[in-house]
Amino acid sequence: MSKVPVAVLGATGNIGQRFVSLLQDHPTFEIAALASSERKVGGSLKAFWRLDDVPLAPHVASMELQPLDLGVLRKHDVVAAFSGLPSEIAGDIEMDAARVGVRVFSNASAHRMDPDVPLLVPEVNPNHLRLVERQPAFREGGFVVTNPNCSITGLALPLKPLVDSLDLTDVHVATYQALSGAGYPGVPSLDITANVIPFIEGEEEKMRREAKKILGSLSDGILPSPIDVWANCARVAVRDGHLEAVSIPLKDEIPAGEIAHLLSSFRGEAQVQQLPTAPNQPVIVRAEANRPQPLLDLMAGEPARARGMAATIGRIRVVERVVRFFVLSHNTIRGGAGGSVLNAEFAHRRGYLD
Amino acid sequence: MSKVPVAVLGATGNIGQRFVSLLQDHPTFEIAALASSERKVGGSLKAFWRLDDVPLAPHVASMELQPLDLGVLRKHDVVAAFSGLPSEIAGDIEMDAARVGVRVFSNASAHRMDPDVPLLVPEVNPNHLRLVERQPAFREGGFVVTNPNCSITGLALPLKPLVDSLDLTDVHVATYQALSGAGYPGVPSLDITANVIPFIEGEEEKMRREAKKILGSLSDGILPSPIDVWANCARVAVRDGHLEAVSIPLKDEIPAGEIAHLLSSFRGEAQVQQLPTAPNQPVIVRAEANRPQPLLDLMAGEPARARGMAATIGRIRVVERVVRFFVLSHNTIRGGAGGSVLNAEFAHRRGYLD
Amino acid sequence: MSKVPVAVLGATGNIGQRFVSLLQDHPTFEIAALASSERKVGGSLKAFWRLDDVPLAPHVASMELQPLDLGVLRKHDVVAAFSGLPSEIAGDIEMDAARVGVRVFSNASAHRMDPDVPLLVPEVNPNHLRLVERQPAFREGGFVVTNPNCSITGLALPLKPLVDSLDLTDVHVATYQALSGAGYPGVPSLDITANVIPFIEGEEEKMRREAKKILGSLSDGILPSPIDVWANCARVAVRDGHLEAVSIPLKDEIPAGEIAHLLSSFRGEAQVQQLPTAPNQPVIVRAEANRPQPLLDLMAGEPARARGMAATIGRIRVVERVVRFFVLSHNTIRGGAGGSVLNAEFAHRRGYLD
Amino acid sequence: MSKVPVAVLGATGNIGQRFVSLLQDHPTFEIAALASSERKVGGSLKAFWRLDDVPLAPHVASMELQPLDLGVLRKHDVVAAFSGLPSEIAGDIEMDAARVGVRVFSNASAHRMDPDVPLLVPEVNPNHLRLVERQPAFREGGFVVTNPNCSITGLALPLKPLVDSLDLTDVHVATYQALSGAGYPGVPSLDITANVIPFIEGEEEKMRREAKKILGSLSDGILPSPIDVWANCARVAVRDGHLEAVSIPLKDEIPAGEIAHLLSSFRGEAQVQQLPTAPNQPVIVRAEANRPQPLLDLMAGEPARARGMAATIGRIRVVERVVRFFVLSHNTIRGGAGGSVLNAEFAHRRGYLD
Repeated sequence: MSKVPVAVLGATGNIGQRFVSLLQDHPTFEIAALASSERKVGGSLKAFWRLDDVPLAPHVASMELQPLDLGVLRKHDVVAAFSGLPSEIAGDIEMDAARVGVRVFSNASAHRMDPDVPLLVPEVNPNHLRLVERQPAFREGGFVVTNPNCSITGLALPLKPLVDSLDLTDVHVATYQALSGAGYPGVPSLDITANVIPFIEGEEEKMRREAKKILGSLSDGILPSPIDVWANCARVAVRDGHLEAVSIPLKDEIPAGEIAHLLSSFRGEAQVQQLPTAPNQPVIVRAEANRPQPLLDLMAGEPARARGMAATIGRIRVVERVVRFFVLSHNTIRGGAGGSVLNAEFAHRRGYLD
Repeated sequence: MSKVPVAVLGATGNIGQRFVSLLQDHPTFEIAALASSERKVGGSLKAFWRLDDVPLAPHVASMELQPLDLGVLRKHDVVAAFSGLPSEIAGDIEMDAARVGVRVFSNASAHRMDPDVPLLVPEVNPNHLRLVERQPAFREGGFVVTNPNCSITGLALPLKPLVDSLDLTDVHVATYQALSGAGYPGVPSLDITANVIPFIEGEEEKMRREAKKILGSLSDGILPSPIDVWANCARVAVRDGHLEAVSIPLKDEIPAGEIAHLLSSFRGEAQVQQLPTAPNQPVIVRAEANRPQPLLDLMAGEPARARGMAATIGRIRVVERVVRFFVLSHNTIRGGAGGSVLNAEFAHRRGYLD
Repeated sequence: MSKVPVAVLGATGNIGQRFVSLLQDHPTFEIAALASSERKVGGSLKAFWRLDDVPLAPHVASMELQPLDLGVLRKHDVVAAFSGLPSEIAGDIEMDAARVGVRVFSNASAHRMDPDVPLLVPEVNPNHLRLVERQPAFREGGFVVTNPNCSITGLALPLKPLVDSLDLTDVHVATYQALSGAGYPGVPSLDITANVIPFIEGEEEKMRREAKKILGSLSDGILPSPIDVWANCARVAVRDGHLEAVSIPLKDEIPAGEIAHLLSSFRGEAQVQQLPTAPNQPVIVRAEANRPQPLLDLMAGEPARARGMAATIGRIRVVERVVRFFVLSHNTIRGGAGGSVLNAEFAHRRGYLD
Repeated sequence: MSKVPVAVLGATGNIGQRFVSLLQDHPTFEIAALASSERKVGGSLKAFWRLDDVPLAPHVASMELQPLDLGVLRKHDVVAAFSGLPSEIAGDIEMDAARVGVRVFSNASAHRMDPDVPLLVPEVNPNHLRLVERQPAFREGGFVVTNPNCSITGLALPLKPLVDSLDLTDVHVATYQALSGAGYPGVPSLDITANVIPFIEGEEEKMRREAKKILGSLSDGILPSPIDVWANCARVAVRDGHLEAVSIPLKDEIPAGEIAHLLSSFRGEAQVQQLPTAPNQPVIVRAEANRPQPLLDLMAGEPARARGMAATIGRIRVVERVVRFFVLSHNTIRGGAGGSVLNAEFAHRRGYLD
């Protein structure tokens, strides 16, 4: 059976490069086109490659960067497109592609809050995928599915089993976010070297808003969850991996060991379906006193294809009725490109790419 | 009038060096002796100096390091001693010194929770100073006064006016703590370069426990405050300055502007008494979107002698009934040596050094 | 006697801010105007201030940023202008200002190699100042004087006494250059965090070319020095301070102690004239095994006004006939704004500002 | 054919861990024992694992750490031992092991300069291996072979083809050395964060001395090479990978392209023999303006088993008769454990392990 031809939109950016690294030898998808902004067209992705941990495959390195237009998608019979576009331009391009029948899996924030666009994490809200059928583009077979913001994705994974089993409404979280989350060139080195910047534009609002949608229930549209995520977001001099410090008041006290069990035994639809990029265990609980750490836990997730797709939890403490823990996830894999690849695998399994 | 002769105990450590930098041209105190661990005795502090922002004064550079014993204190007629000793050894040495009449102002945690030892921040709980009169050593004129842990000191300053005016009980806080807080050699560079370590031994417990004491009320001993500080503590690759992300549920909604006003108009006993090292404004509120930052706000505080003594607050947000903000303070000045120097100035003003 | 009114051109950049910090309470000069690129005009320098070690003086903070045009210079009777402009635009603006009689002291590279423009370091080539009299603008009293590139300035200071006393022609040097040398926003944090970038555009050529001019002899124009500086330039994740590793083959062997003596006893015209910003000792030799270090030796130089104006040398080793050492200097003070301020003080002392 | 049983001495250190990562699935060798200092005996290597890029294999993770004594080697029929021991203790332990017939491949400096001990880089001086036959221990089949210091190994690779083809005697080099080179805990973070330390104990002498031996000719013992390596060594805040800036005066001018060709076409005995850990190309020349960089070129080398075994060269410039370039190599792979593994593969191929 031949593979599904896909395009990567915005292929030279941090997220675009991650898309390429995850798709270049994928069992279901094959890269048919790499599209980028006008001034890079004609060049090779090789000149922009910054992922020191993954070499660019020769067959992709030899592809020419193409313009961001529908003709390119048509010419290469693209069935699905993965969008790592900046949100300012993603809105129109993604919708246009969907209208001509392309299944768009996007990391951009442009359509995340559209009522008919799923903000999908297959482990958390798989049933939201059905929303795509309400999109006008669906008549042509096209649609847009988004993955959530990098900071909330990593938090949504442990929140799901907690919210399902415990009585809680407020989640206080502070983030230690990596440089790669700001794109490239992103944060000037003079701003962040030996420093912390306690501000990431729009991030805290996104975390609250998107959590309400992801955890919301589906009836006629999505009913927002009552959970409130109160975030303080900061940038630190770490290359990859968002660490988050979480503090949650509970209605009833519960032993830390029970919370650890809830988290580490959590499995979602992605695991049940054994999607190629799904980690066997979406939430890994570590017992060491000083974990998770960006450097050590960044690539958590097995099997090999799922490296960087698991969230790592550590330091679960319950004192009186407050539970605290740290969670780490890879912001451009689980919280970015990997999230959308998993979404596409899930949509494919459900027959939406046929 | 001649100055009060003082000693610095543990003069070569990170806190000890800060003590020296603050005392070497102090209007009230003069350094009579520098004491350090046995193997450094006879040498000069110069060989250990790591404070790139303050040159060591020649008259101190020429002093010989002395052993940590009572004979040294007696020989130099030391009235007060500032202790930057490691907590493991501070307990006995400080109490012994107090017993022979020395007023000990300590940054060590050894005696912080002793019922009769003030855990003093002159802006927050000046009346606690009176506790010293209950110490057995006080018959000789000696006593021990401690300053709180570096992380809670910076937070206690803004908490004080909030707790006095608003109805709140839970304070969720995540810290971004500087390397200097771990002493020297402290954190190995391989552990922290391009990384975050989500664990600082004992820190979270200290923050909760000490906040309850500092904010507690004095009657027959100290009645712990009902305020609970729920901390997640992490180390980041910043040289100096602890940043903290704070999230507080309130019983009633209140505009962010009002909170800003409460904080920036706050003045304590240290300001009323115009103590030499007291900042004119103990809590500075910044309006910029991306402050406070360790690099830029570390040395907040005026006049010159009070640099590093003010806490800087930024990004005050109130959404529904949750207030969030960031606070930064200098961990080895306000949260360390400067805190104890201010305590000593306050005790001196109150006549306890006569 | 009233002070000389001066302007800072490009006041918001890294070098511009240093100019302001050095001139805001200068004994001879007073800031009459701050000029910047069009889109910042009307604003205050305060919004751009990034010098964490020097507070912006209130009387300068309240000045409005003005456009970069001659009218502004005339309106404020500006006698001298300090240029921290990007080299692309500095060329024309500086020459235009000189033509209307302004004495321009520039950090830009645009005119450094012009035959009639001094590339001045008062300790090294004070007699080159006379070149200004050959400039066409000099008929109006105006001229342009430049300070050398940041990397070669720090090296020229120790080279001068060595070249004068020893027989040498080749200087092999590798640099460890600070982030502030690249301006702002400058180096992206993703490029440099936990990394080294072994390339700085044009820097190595500048070092060779400018060394030949600075060390050249003046007759009818400047005869380039035979000294060859062979540089390998790299950027490291240090905020300020260029460290350089130097290796020089000598014709004859000489003890390291003699070299140390040559360097530490070196005094130039700036010292003889006791210029306000001149360090008592332009080259400081440290005996410790692990110096100079950017963090510890950055601000070397006394008295207070000359902080950051001395080069610090360490680890002088002579094996057979090769001498090696490290040298550190502040790239935006000695190697930038401070260099031009010293040049202006020297020109003023010589009567060129009357 | 069964694999050769080997031991790793000092298995928990930075180099020891690299040995394990390279040997845990090696085609020729199998780990029979992990030995460490007394206080870690009985524990598992898992607790010390810091290599974020390689997971510890389960069969090694389950091994118990054993004491550093001959009984352990005998009990496991160890044929070869890889030593990542600190040099202070390596001297005796290694020689004792050799005396009982163990082939020791050591990264320690203790025996590097012993006249009968090869300081081996199979691409550079394969014939030196024969020296082992002169060691007293060889009667029992045992011997000691060392790999050179991490800084000189990376430089020796490009020097070999240059020295063979060009007329040169002096090599001026400055290093930018990674934190992992100092072991663990190694460099305190307060010393190196946003700083450079221009001193690494003994390193510069080792570079000169060891280069003379590696490049020396073998007759009756080793005749030191006339090449002088004049090094300035510094530590930078990079996790892995030593970058070196090289400047070499040549007797005759030669185009940069020719040097690039000499380097990239260089193949040594390791390549001829197709040793498992030998990179296809020991010296990779990159054409980009800003390479090599630690982050991007650290793991250079193909095939997969040889990742981190190639030196990467960039920025080759020839001006007049001076050639300059940068070279990068992985300090704990090519310059450490990988070097000794390659040596063992080479000795095995030559029949010394039979």
